[in-house]
Amino acid sequence: MTYTIQQIAEALGLTAEGNGALTVTGVAEPQSARADELAMASTPKYAEALKDGAARAGFLWAGADWRALGLEAAILPPRPRFSMSALTAMMDRGPGYAASVHPSAVIDPGAELGADVSVGPLAVIGRGARIGAGSVIGPQVFVGEDATLGEGALLHAGVRIMARVRIGARFIAQPGAVIGGDGFSFVTPELSGVEKARQSLGEEGTDSAQSWARIASLGAVTIGDDVEIGANSTVDRGTVRDTMIGSGTKLDNLVTVGHNVVIGRDCLLCGQVGVAGSSVIGDNVVMAGQVGISDNLRVGDRAILGGATVVLSNVPAGRVMLGYPAMKMESHVEAYKGLRRLPRLFREVADLKKAVSKASGND
Amino acid sequence: MTYTIQQIAEALGLTAEGNGALTVTGVAEPQSARADELAMASTPKYAEALKDGAARAGFLWAGADWRALGLEAAILPPRPRFSMSALTAMMDRGPGYAASVHPSAVIDPGAELGADVSVGPLAVIGRGARIGAGSVIGPQVFVGEDATLGEGALLHAGVRIMARVRIGARFIAQPGAVIGGDGFSFVTPELSGVEKARQSLGEEGTDSAQSWARIASLGAVTIGDDVEIGANSTVDRGTVRDTMIGSGTKLDNLVTVGHNVVIGRDCLLCGQVGVAGSSVIGDNVVMAGQVGISDNLRVGDRAILGGATVVLSNVPAGRVMLGYPAMKMESHVEAYKGLRRLPRLFREVADLKKAVSKASGND
Amino acid sequence: MTYTIQQIAEALGLTAEGNGALTVTGVAEPQSARADELAMASTPKYAEALKDGAARAGFLWAGADWRALGLEAAILPPRPRFSMSALTAMMDRGPGYAASVHPSAVIDPGAELGADVSVGPLAVIGRGARIGAGSVIGPQVFVGEDATLGEGALLHAGVRIMARVRIGARFIAQPGAVIGGDGFSFVTPELSGVEKARQSLGEEGTDSAQSWARIASLGAVTIGDDVEIGANSTVDRGTVRDTMIGSGTKLDNLVTVGHNVVIGRDCLLCGQVGVAGSSVIGDNVVMAGQVGISDNLRVGDRAILGGATVVLSNVPAGRVMLGYPAMKMESHVEAYKGLRRLPRLFREVADLKKAVSKASGND
Repeated sequence: MTYTIQQIAEALGLTAEGNGALTVTGVAEPQSARADELAMASTPKYAEALKDGAARAGFLWAGADWRALGLEAAILPPRPRFSMSALTAMMDRGPGYAASVHPSAVIDPGAELGADVSVGPLAVIGRGARIGAGSVIGPQVFVGEDATLGEGALLHAGVRIMARVRIGARFIAQPGAVIGGDGFSFVTPELSGVEKARQSLGEEGTDSAQSWARIASLGAVTIGDDVEIGANSTVDRGTVRDTMIGSGTKLDNLVTVGHNVVIGRDCLLCGQVGVAGSSVIGDNVVMAGQVGISDNLRVGDRAILGGATVVLSNVPAGRVMLGYPAMKMESHVEAYKGLRRLPRLFREVADLKKAVSKASGND
Repeated sequence: MTYTIQQIAEALGLTAEGNGALTVTGVAEPQSARADELAMASTPKYAEALKDGAARAGFLWAGADWRALGLEAAILPPRPRFSMSALTAMMDRGPGYAASVHPSAVIDPGAELGADVSVGPLAVIGRGARIGAGSVIGPQVFVGEDATLGEGALLHAGVRIMARVRIGARFIAQPGAVIGGDGFSFVTPELSGVEKARQSLGEEGTDSAQSWARIASLGAVTIGDDVEIGANSTVDRGTVRDTMIGSGTKLDNLVTVGHNVVIGRDCLLCGQVGVAGSSVIGDNVVMAGQVGISDNLRVGDRAILGGATVVLSNVPAGRVMLGYPAMKMESHVEAYKGLRRLPRLFREVADLKKAVSKASGND
Repeated sequence: MTYTIQQIAEALGLTAEGNGALTVTGVAEPQSARADELAMASTPKYAEALKDGAARAGFLWAGADWRALGLEAAILPPRPRFSMSALTAMMDRGPGYAASVHPSAVIDPGAELGADVSVGPLAVIGRGARIGAGSVIGPQVFVGEDATLGEGALLHAGVRIMARVRIGARFIAQPGAVIGGDGFSFVTPELSGVEKARQSLGEEGTDSAQSWARIASLGAVTIGDDVEIGANSTVDRGTVRDTMIGSGTKLDNLVTVGHNVVIGRDCLLCGQVGVAGSSVIGDNVVMAGQVGISDNLRVGDRAILGGATVVLSNVPAGRVMLGYPAMKMESHVEAYKGLRRLPRLFREVADLKKAVSKASGND
């Protein structure tokens, strides 16, 4: 596939600088770009690297002097990172799934497939499942009984959508994602050690030996529009009502969302985040990798949780948190600066004690 | 499916209050319950919400005045959370797998299926595998050579049970769980940097560049009765003997259990817990989400490890731990209260130094 | 299968002691070894346990007095842990996949399979995929369009290799591993709260509500020779160029490697490690379980990161780190010793303040 710089600029709603008729076959980092590739150098710090490559056209920063950089054509987006979205969408070669229903797929006669739905080899679609128009069901995918998917879904290889899960439009699931496994909910006949430890703040953990009885998940999972779920991530069903994920929210790989959790709109949950049962997450919340949210908590709108933050109590809206246990980011930076200097502080206090003792004439 | 309040109460070993002949089709949260749903309001704090819904029957707390709450019938369990187990089991609609052996499943002629075993579409069952009576093997499941499953197993879509794994009765595996992948065991020809760092407590980490030789896993995995494994969780085979999980133990999603690990009976390992190679976990141990156990450690019976606790040394029986590194929960609360106030302590000590210096006439 | 002690010793490049003609059928721990099993007792601390078993031959430590331990034959490797590699390779019974191309596999006519490639039941191999000679493609595996695998690959059940991924020789992937899912890369039209929080070190997190635009992954994944990936682990494609994993590197279960990451040679990433987008990891780096590396960082050659270390800034070569946030291991040990004693320090400082106040005549 080839594109002229003019075509690309138009697709991004921008103007081509220089020779708009120049063609490229793809994009590349500046230092390794071939003559037929568009060099990605979105800030001045990548300008030098352009000389090591052979690019004739660049995707640069606003105001870049592309002629001085030796280029024949350029695109100068005001916010290059945002323009990357349209640019990469245009050039994406996709997963290579065939646009047809493969004869090896096992599709229940009671399933309803919308117009232009493709189904990959060895996929299974259960009774009563409904797949929206234009969806792509990848190879070896499972869609359970009475599950519904809106239009334009893309389920990659090996995704599992369990029974009665309801998903909106333009859903993307990376390989191996599981939507609608049973919630992890067990109970002992008598009060358990965990319940006691919570009541006593950890002073009482010893437990008589009891076995766990299973609480089944009568709810399913409801997911809004424009949601993406990462590879091998898992979202559990609810106990009495559905677990819910709002429109526009994106989950990275190996994320787990527990039963009854409610996640708002336009959130970002990065790799290996875990949200325990019944917690409620607001809108526009960002969780960096490995963040953990304990059960039955609330995280307010627009909160930002830094890498591996462990949230053990509610987080107000708009708060930036870091650490284990989670602190406001400024407090965390201060506290850990102190932690590193603690050995010195112990020595200073010991010296002070000696000095005071001496000054008091107790020596 | 409809149930009378009388039927439900009897199934829970309880007595129906009021109009036991009233029928419901399912359960719901109190505020959204329809007239044909049983409202779940297991503590007085949910009493108010009943007014927002249309329920005529409630699943309430012991001693609740259901008439005053406007209901016609009620069930008043002494421990509602425990009664949820029988209630949800009764109403669970299940995964919707067909009760038959699907013709697309690939079952080795040398596999043995017990009575009333169902096998979903595109499942694979290897030579010498034995599946206990009444088991449900979901779609796209893999059961390897000579693996054995006790009676009443439920393997959800995409579960992988590898060769020679042995599992007891009533096993449940959520979608994508892997039992019996190879252990992660590698060794360098000469002492590695990690071995040196352990010997020297971290003073010596620099390593000559060496490649890793693989140690194969000759053992498999042995699992007791009534065990459940969460979605996309993994349990590795042992090196010389089997990795072991005791009866009644439950693992949540994305949990990993390393080679040679021994886990006792009736433990609960919540989401994203990791137990590294050769560690031994007692009975009735509870690990909250994201807990990590380093290799070759012992965690005593009935220990409770709070969210994201990182265990780097042995934990005695009955201990409640929290933090990284793990501390007794009370100590953790105290220490981190101090950590937050550290910047103030530094200022106080600085002031004291000035005061003492002045008092000593050194100014 | 039976082996003489002589055969085993020769396979390890060692000499058999005593009756080399003695045969064994496998290995076992010393206390449970049967008469036809080789007892593994690689250090003197396991010597006692030999008496509880019935072994007639032992795999012991250099210089062990095997006759005094009641054995008839022995192998005395100078570094037993290293010799375990060849020993277990010799005795590994493997996953039991048939050495043939199963008729139920869906192999695109445009795929190229090398000599002696076996393909399990219900595997899918896409157009243009190339599989190196001698490879074993397990049941229910997916290999995408134009993906290439070097010779001698072993893909266990349910592995997904996505389009255009390139992998070297002798690759091993445990069940459910996903190589080449899309990167997790999203951008808002205007500067997001996360970008602002990073610029202001957390003082400014409040964000106007914006939706996320997707940046597609135009790159794939390139993996060297002799790499192993654990069960249900995920490695994402790059944005403009490939994500890269160097030769000899091993990943354990549930590890995630983000888009654009570069990992060097001979690294070990243990269970549940996460490496965020665009970070660069050197050679011979070892990361213990649950380690997290933030995005856009560098970790130098031969660094060792202890269990659950959270890396939020660059790590120099050869450094041994621990903790959240990561500190040099010695500093971590000191700092956390101080943290545990903090409540006492607060009391001491309070006492000092009183003493100084009194000494100053302010009482």
